[in-house]
Amino acid sequence: MAGNSFGTLFKLTTFGESHGEAIGGIIDGCPAGLKIDYEAITSEMNRRKPGQSMITTQRKEEDEVRFLSGIFEGKTTGTPIGFVIENTNQKSKDYSHIKEVYRPSHADFTYDKKYGHRDYRGGGRTSARETACRVAAGAIAKQLIKDIKITAFVSSVGDIYIDKPYQELDFSKIENNIVRCPDEAIATKMISRIEAIKKEGDTIGGTVMCVLQNVPIGLGEPVFDKLHAQLGKAMLSINAVKGFEYGAGFCATSMKGSEHNDIFNEDGTTKTNLSGGIQGGISNGMDIYFRVAFKPVATIMQKQQTLDANGNIIEIQGKGRHDPCVVPRAVPIVEAMAALVLADFVLLNKVAKMR
Amino acid sequence: MAGNSFGTLFKLTTFGESHGEAIGGIIDGCPAGLKIDYEAITSEMNRRKPGQSMITTQRKEEDEVRFLSGIFEGKTTGTPIGFVIENTNQKSKDYSHIKEVYRPSHADFTYDKKYGHRDYRGGGRTSARETACRVAAGAIAKQLIKDIKITAFVSSVGDIYIDKPYQELDFSKIENNIVRCPDEAIATKMISRIEAIKKEGDTIGGTVMCVLQNVPIGLGEPVFDKLHAQLGKAMLSINAVKGFEYGAGFCATSMKGSEHNDIFNEDGTTKTNLSGGIQGGISNGMDIYFRVAFKPVATIMQKQQTLDANGNIIEIQGKGRHDPCVVPRAVPIVEAMAALVLADFVLLNKVAKMR
Amino acid sequence: MAGNSFGTLFKLTTFGESHGEAIGGIIDGCPAGLKIDYEAITSEMNRRKPGQSMITTQRKEEDEVRFLSGIFEGKTTGTPIGFVIENTNQKSKDYSHIKEVYRPSHADFTYDKKYGHRDYRGGGRTSARETACRVAAGAIAKQLIKDIKITAFVSSVGDIYIDKPYQELDFSKIENNIVRCPDEAIATKMISRIEAIKKEGDTIGGTVMCVLQNVPIGLGEPVFDKLHAQLGKAMLSINAVKGFEYGAGFCATSMKGSEHNDIFNEDGTTKTNLSGGIQGGISNGMDIYFRVAFKPVATIMQKQQTLDANGNIIEIQGKGRHDPCVVPRAVPIVEAMAALVLADFVLLNKVAKMR
Amino acid sequence: MAGNSFGTLFKLTTFGESHGEAIGGIIDGCPAGLKIDYEAITSEMNRRKPGQSMITTQRKEEDEVRFLSGIFEGKTTGTPIGFVIENTNQKSKDYSHIKEVYRPSHADFTYDKKYGHRDYRGGGRTSARETACRVAAGAIAKQLIKDIKITAFVSSVGDIYIDKPYQELDFSKIENNIVRCPDEAIATKMISRIEAIKKEGDTIGGTVMCVLQNVPIGLGEPVFDKLHAQLGKAMLSINAVKGFEYGAGFCATSMKGSEHNDIFNEDGTTKTNLSGGIQGGISNGMDIYFRVAFKPVATIMQKQQTLDANGNIIEIQGKGRHDPCVVPRAVPIVEAMAALVLADFVLLNKVAKMR
Repeated sequence: MAGNSFGTLFKLTTFGESHGEAIGGIIDGCPAGLKIDYEAITSEMNRRKPGQSMITTQRKEEDEVRFLSGIFEGKTTGTPIGFVIENTNQKSKDYSHIKEVYRPSHADFTYDKKYGHRDYRGGGRTSARETACRVAAGAIAKQLIKDIKITAFVSSVGDIYIDKPYQELDFSKIENNIVRCPDEAIATKMISRIEAIKKEGDTIGGTVMCVLQNVPIGLGEPVFDKLHAQLGKAMLSINAVKGFEYGAGFCATSMKGSEHNDIFNEDGTTKTNLSGGIQGGISNGMDIYFRVAFKPVATIMQKQQTLDANGNIIEIQGKGRHDPCVVPRAVPIVEAMAALVLADFVLLNKVAKMR
Repeated sequence: MAGNSFGTLFKLTTFGESHGEAIGGIIDGCPAGLKIDYEAITSEMNRRKPGQSMITTQRKEEDEVRFLSGIFEGKTTGTPIGFVIENTNQKSKDYSHIKEVYRPSHADFTYDKKYGHRDYRGGGRTSARETACRVAAGAIAKQLIKDIKITAFVSSVGDIYIDKPYQELDFSKIENNIVRCPDEAIATKMISRIEAIKKEGDTIGGTVMCVLQNVPIGLGEPVFDKLHAQLGKAMLSINAVKGFEYGAGFCATSMKGSEHNDIFNEDGTTKTNLSGGIQGGISNGMDIYFRVAFKPVATIMQKQQTLDANGNIIEIQGKGRHDPCVVPRAVPIVEAMAALVLADFVLLNKVAKMR
Repeated sequence: MAGNSFGTLFKLTTFGESHGEAIGGIIDGCPAGLKIDYEAITSEMNRRKPGQSMITTQRKEEDEVRFLSGIFEGKTTGTPIGFVIENTNQKSKDYSHIKEVYRPSHADFTYDKKYGHRDYRGGGRTSARETACRVAAGAIAKQLIKDIKITAFVSSVGDIYIDKPYQELDFSKIENNIVRCPDEAIATKMISRIEAIKKEGDTIGGTVMCVLQNVPIGLGEPVFDKLHAQLGKAMLSINAVKGFEYGAGFCATSMKGSEHNDIFNEDGTTKTNLSGGIQGGISNGMDIYFRVAFKPVATIMQKQQTLDANGNIIEIQGKGRHDPCVVPRAVPIVEAMAALVLADFVLLNKVAKMR
Repeated sequence: MAGNSFGTLFKLTTFGESHGEAIGGIIDGCPAGLKIDYEAITSEMNRRKPGQSMITTQRKEEDEVRFLSGIFEGKTTGTPIGFVIENTNQKSKDYSHIKEVYRPSHADFTYDKKYGHRDYRGGGRTSARETACRVAAGAIAKQLIKDIKITAFVSSVGDIYIDKPYQELDFSKIENNIVRCPDEAIATKMISRIEAIKKEGDTIGGTVMCVLQNVPIGLGEPVFDKLHAQLGKAMLSINAVKGFEYGAGFCATSMKGSEHNDIFNEDGTTKTNLSGGIQGGISNGMDIYFRVAFKPVATIMQKQQTLDANGNIIEIQGKGRHDPCVVPRAVPIVEAMAALVLADFVLLNKVAKMR
């Protein structure tokens, strides 16, 4: 099974290259009768789209989602929801210089070796443009599970990070700044850092934290499709992601059981939540929180040596308009993937027991 | 789809509770004609089994795998390989005290809420006993992809960690000590630490590192089933895992692109390997390496307050024989899950392009 | 994906060869809290088992199902239900004569060519013994959907057939005779026919009709997983099946629309039911009925020329104890596969629309 | 899993309603490097499209397939192939009269009950327009398995049928007449029959036969995904299909084993082929042949009583342009579905054994 489908009951399949005619997808399995809020979809698309601020790529794309089926008179019909997003900004000439070049830490080399024939223009299928389809589908998933609050934000850029637990942050401030960090002082530092990096012609990594609130108890399908395992896969499938941790995460490895265990209250909640809202792969009703690690974007505006398809070492330099730091635009993508995971598990959980 | 299957072409489905009659599984999709090395399977089972050393649980189980089908005259036939492992060590009485108790940071509470009816004996399906089936199946997967070298080891216990790149380690020493750490000096410290923790009646977390060598170029199925996304899911599905990172992992988030990019050599290898052997979700032929974070075992021999099914706060204390630290026995499980992922992708890759 | 799994949410995976140690399976996705009626399972197994009457094979097998997991204190727990059926009647020596022989119209030749290595004893995986697992799982599926009445019976043996619509038959008489035909006069003729065929050392084909009553409206998942498409696949996957038709079936091909259309009553039922209870791949609440065509068993007690693995034409003659006509024992298998299909669609339908 | 995907490795997912903006699909898993013959695709689309002759619907639709991804410089890249077919002939007003009407033997009633909300225009998702996507994808599948010859033709219309084995037919004549019957005398009768039926304002059923030649030995994945089981499902998923049989089919039920068994030749071929090219669910290298039963189209130009959504019996009469007999246009659809099945099994068979 080629890997362009995600989910079991609420299932997204996507297609499209950055410089082909269009990208798009099919959502199969969305229950009938869901009222679609198109403005909410547009809003999510705008959070992801390029050219939105000084610290993202300056490429302009409207990313308008055209729904072709599955919605009638404003509500889903239970039939598959097909959608396309036209590639209005294709400039194939920009990319002729990389036709036979394997850029360092890009997927040019691996795609060429695996498939033998690739669309080299702008990264083709490997471009993060593909994630626009995830955001569109995730926006519908969010509407299906509207009682769950999904909030992602930038928790670090390079070595600048938020030094507080998420409970002390004001999530309403996330969209107040272009880096999408709810701590304004830290946000200012992050923005300066990205601007400095951009001037160097370099790029920088960062992390996105995501908090899922008001999650019903019971989501997740052990033993392989545990809730955090599927969240992890979802996040790791996003371009440039190098790591995933939930709850206490890697910090848990240096803790004792007596420190790490979450003691129950009488109502089934827990006094602490180092577990991150999941026990045995199933949500326990507490907040779920996780961190996603993004590497620095591979395309830099500095000269680098690299390899061409003929085995020669050559010198290249990034052209065009690229993100100096990917995390601000990654925030809605992380949320979208979380929504897809949760929507699927909400549906799957409806058949967990006799009713 | 209840989540007890893993893989697309090389597919494992497992069943079994810790205190039921038996656990077992079915491997469907193993190609015909593979000669089975039963000793190698037993050897892997022994690396996982309880009671193997002073720093693991003292519970004794033989974990003998009985193959029921799919192998004839020592070779696979292409039909499903059914196997069972009898539960010879069931002592149901040991567990009557937890029948109506939700132990802290266990899955008792979530299973009860999700399913309404559970086998409470010894954790039932949530027991790590389930991983014995993963190891059995992984041992066959290893034989299918025998050119790939899969090596896991304990890289940290609590705050004691190996302070060298894996390239400087001698993997042949991993099995020389009971903690499965290739650095002997560090191993000694780790063992002392675990013994001290055990005396306290407490538990401690740790990390397992895994290195995949001689991986063919081309494994992985973007955009959702990227090699590292599937590896991440595989690892996160193991009991007690809280995090996964590959290549530079979380460290990549504070790096610049100019530092993180791996520059090519003429032969397609790279001078550095911060990418961790995967570009765009596809193996590039370099070593793949990743780290898996394990929390401290939740069952401790100290008194803790907890909740019972009637909403009362009660006091409990762990009984029986539990691991003070899970990572030594997790090593073969990590390898097994890696083998399952790789075997599946090796088969999937056979149809990636026209030949 | 090797093809030993059936179903999406209520999913059966089976293993086992006729002369291996055991056959068995895993049911994943059965909701928790289902009370299991073991006697009902045994009863279904007995309807399928060999040696049950003079017109079936005289081979004796007890076909006792041993459940290993997923059921606790008599109720399902939501975890996978593993089960095995030991092969108590293995007589490998009986089959040494066919080790290198491709029997006519058996799968010896195709298995050898596809897999290169096969368990030739008694047909191995191709033996209808495999269907015992389907019956065991189907018996549980029946309990999950106990409001639906599933009734199969023998509708023809050779050219002897029931010459009435099913509505005129008394289903309570099906188990009154060994051929499982509710029309007693016809049943007597069928039995005589089979006995005569058996004396000739020959075999004969037949059909099984199945009626599904009290099916809820809404089952089926168009456009590919239509209810009748999945029923058809289920039936065609049974050994020796050559055809499937539902409703008016092949007769519909010579009808006019004005004759074939089912006119509605005010309550949504229809005056006729040539559609067979399914419109557009979705159940409409009327009876679903279909016919399944079984070929004559390929193993005959007469001399036949055939091919061996070395390319020589040789003469063989069936040995052992085989069914002269497969349809009496096929009745519970048809019901079991129908139950598996319905159970899966009942679960899938729970997420068809917002509630 | 909503049922709009077909196949495991070569997988088609479709979307679209007859009167929405567009229909389309995604082919995931087509190997890279396949040269695409666009004219061949157009040719298949033209064989299916409405308005092609006097005996089909007079509706005009161009059915132009616009490929959006997965093909670059004329060859597949291994990434998903997205395509859309615009609905240029939407005339929603035509259908307002059926908004609250359940037409007899249509899926209006079942869709309304299952989903609660439906696109009633022109049948919406239940329209056979959906099959255009199958033909587009099947045309690519055919190119992938170009050594296999797939030939379907009309074998009967009402009670007029070809009275010869397929071996005596000249397949090159199939496209010589508008009914797609290779026997010219019979074709003439069929056409007259359809014209007469059309004048009556009625419709008529028929059968399509399909022959698969030069199929490699080894296709099919027992025990559930047998080649004929998957072919059966594929055919039964096509609109208006009521039955499927392969090889001797229902005729086999009245045969003896001694008559039905196919005796081998020395080269592994068989003297007869009543088995229809499949043994044990796996192709044996002989011709595969099967028959598909189509009911008469439900929309007739005569007055009929029916039910509306308010529970009233009303009178309706078909309007617009409908097929009096569906089989001529079903021929390319049957071929397309056969191609999808075969392409998937060809890929799956590449991993059946060690090489």
